[in-house]
Amino acid sequence: MKLRLATPGPTEVPQRLLLAGAREIVHHRSSEMEALFQEINTGLPPLFGTQSPVYSFAASGTGAMEASVANCFTPGDEVLIVSNGYFGERFQAIARAYGLTAHVVQSPWGTSADPEKVAEAYARHPDVRGVLVVYSETSTGALNDVRAIGEIFRDTDAIVVVDAISGLLVHPMEMDAWGLDVVLAASHKGFMLPPGLAFVALSDKAWTAVERGTGPNYYWSFKRLRQFYPMSSSSPAVSLLLALHESLKMLGEEGLAPFRDRHALLGRAAERALLALGFSPFIQPPHQRSSVITAALAPEGVDTGVLLKTLSAKYGLTVTGGQAHLKGALLRIGHVGAADALDLCAVFGALELALLDCGHTFTPGAGTGEVIRTVHEGER
Amino acid sequence: MKLRLATPGPTEVPQRLLLAGAREIVHHRSSEMEALFQEINTGLPPLFGTQSPVYSFAASGTGAMEASVANCFTPGDEVLIVSNGYFGERFQAIARAYGLTAHVVQSPWGTSADPEKVAEAYARHPDVRGVLVVYSETSTGALNDVRAIGEIFRDTDAIVVVDAISGLLVHPMEMDAWGLDVVLAASHKGFMLPPGLAFVALSDKAWTAVERGTGPNYYWSFKRLRQFYPMSSSSPAVSLLLALHESLKMLGEEGLAPFRDRHALLGRAAERALLALGFSPFIQPPHQRSSVITAALAPEGVDTGVLLKTLSAKYGLTVTGGQAHLKGALLRIGHVGAADALDLCAVFGALELALLDCGHTFTPGAGTGEVIRTVHEGER
Repeated sequence: MKLRLATPGPTEVPQRLLLAGAREIVHHRSSEMEALFQEINTGLPPLFGTQSPVYSFAASGTGAMEASVANCFTPGDEVLIVSNGYFGERFQAIARAYGLTAHVVQSPWGTSADPEKVAEAYARHPDVRGVLVVYSETSTGALNDVRAIGEIFRDTDAIVVVDAISGLLVHPMEMDAWGLDVVLAASHKGFMLPPGLAFVALSDKAWTAVERGTGPNYYWSFKRLRQFYPMSSSSPAVSLLLALHESLKMLGEEGLAPFRDRHALLGRAAERALLALGFSPFIQPPHQRSSVITAALAPEGVDTGVLLKTLSAKYGLTVTGGQAHLKGALLRIGHVGAADALDLCAVFGALELALLDCGHTFTPGAGTGEVIRTVHEGER
Repeated sequence: MKLRLATPGPTEVPQRLLLAGAREIVHHRSSEMEALFQEINTGLPPLFGTQSPVYSFAASGTGAMEASVANCFTPGDEVLIVSNGYFGERFQAIARAYGLTAHVVQSPWGTSADPEKVAEAYARHPDVRGVLVVYSETSTGALNDVRAIGEIFRDTDAIVVVDAISGLLVHPMEMDAWGLDVVLAASHKGFMLPPGLAFVALSDKAWTAVERGTGPNYYWSFKRLRQFYPMSSSSPAVSLLLALHESLKMLGEEGLAPFRDRHALLGRAAERALLALGFSPFIQPPHQRSSVITAALAPEGVDTGVLLKTLSAKYGLTVTGGQAHLKGALLRIGHVGAADALDLCAVFGALELALLDCGHTFTPGAGTGEVIRTVHEGER
């Protein structure tokens, strides 16, 4: 059976990138690697909207989140954490592990964070050393307005740490212009690569925080990453860097704006198709939705547990359900990276078949039809 | 030009493993991944000589070293660090970063650590919470007797943390029988894989230390690794796990004893060949040499800097020089992983050509002849 991934990440990796990662290994201190790093180091910063270097190290996205906390703060520091989903909670767990005092700006799952609430929290806690916020909250499909949040802290001493793991590339990122201080990302979302590579970019203000930090770290010490730049501080994940080099080429060929438009179109198409099949989109206006995934609550009578199992066992399609308290209630369809409109037709083909298997009543083609209609309209 | 790696790691990755890592990505919470992890989780422990689980996470070897320190000790803890090379010093740097009080059992670079000196240091510092030791010190080619060191601490409360990053598979490892408490390793040495995957196995005594530890960690928290076992705690490096699965098959086909014998033979052959070309092997009896690399000091009049440059620029061969104060003096030929006798012929072919280019005088074939002679004798 052919296997398909429509998840928020890992995403399907194009064959071109898989094979680029399968070429012979080069040594991490060789001139070949130097040439490779030069192109990677030139290619990454524009994608972050920064003039600063973007550092990479072998880890998954959580490693980049922890590295940011470990490097920029000191036990006892007060921070604000903007939280409206699973990954906002992960920032809290990491902050707890590092002995920070976290003031949580909580918004319900399924909503975008309100920048005004962040500004109010900052007024109540003017001593915070920084704010941690997730750009695209893949547990719910909500997008947070990191630009507006950056504005609040622009002329202050507090730094803005943005988890852009899934949001980067898919949504605009102008780190320098928006006054963001740490932007972190990972390989297995928009970059279309396997997991295992983490990225981080830092503003001058972030470096001031790093200089002040006393928390223990070595492997992902930002100072050490800077010291070894343009090369890597430890043995890098060479095969992933070879694939990244090719991914940057692919992104360059498509262009960032068309890449984003494609994701926005897929998001609209998935939402309408889910609606047509009786699902309720989880993010409702005025909240902003991410184009990384489309999340929706299942129609009455459809058990998403059974649905997910049928999709994977019978049709080879992996989509994800809800995380934490949304387990069983939510369906999350990922369309990040290399996914295109025809992939989405296949995804909804499988979903319709599985829904029929589950006894759900609808006109076959209702979902895929909406995909086709939306794409056709979008292309005019 | 064809590129060749004869380095202590990353090592050349067999095409079979490169292609296994290039198959389509599976989701890390899917039943396919569950099946994959089941085989990996069954295959790894015997290689560590343990009944305990072996956990993996995306990071290079340094990440596994730091994870061990971060999880098992608490700031202010006294530890012994056995140091006779670059990676012993790395343990010191990490211990410093974590606020441990390290008593260093120093031996000169190019020698094996003396277990009696470790026992004496322990007698002087009976309050140490553990000892950190590198099994195969790839900066010099020395092997440390971790079995004898394990014996010293067997009936004590102090734990023995072994960096077996390059030593695993190449040299015997009987973690349980030898009373070792944390054994850490990485993908890009004996496993013949690209860098990016770290491994760690823990004894019950190590878990007691972990329970006591208060140091901050999240991504590589051992408790979190245990909690998610048999699956991974964060997005794993899927492509490397796919390749690891195939690597375990390859190791099983060759068998551990033949794998070790091959490495020992290559080490002997490389040492004799270097001797024949006027080099002086860096590890002299009674010190134990690792079969991961062969290190030797260059003959008078040979500038290893020029030699290394010629090897890579003209012959496409990457071997490594010395690290730290041995930079410029030492030549280190790696033969770990998939390297075989004919690879070593090619390595010495390039080395002889480059030595001739450098104006060094010897009978062409002196080095490769010794490789052939040693292998022929070894096979009788």
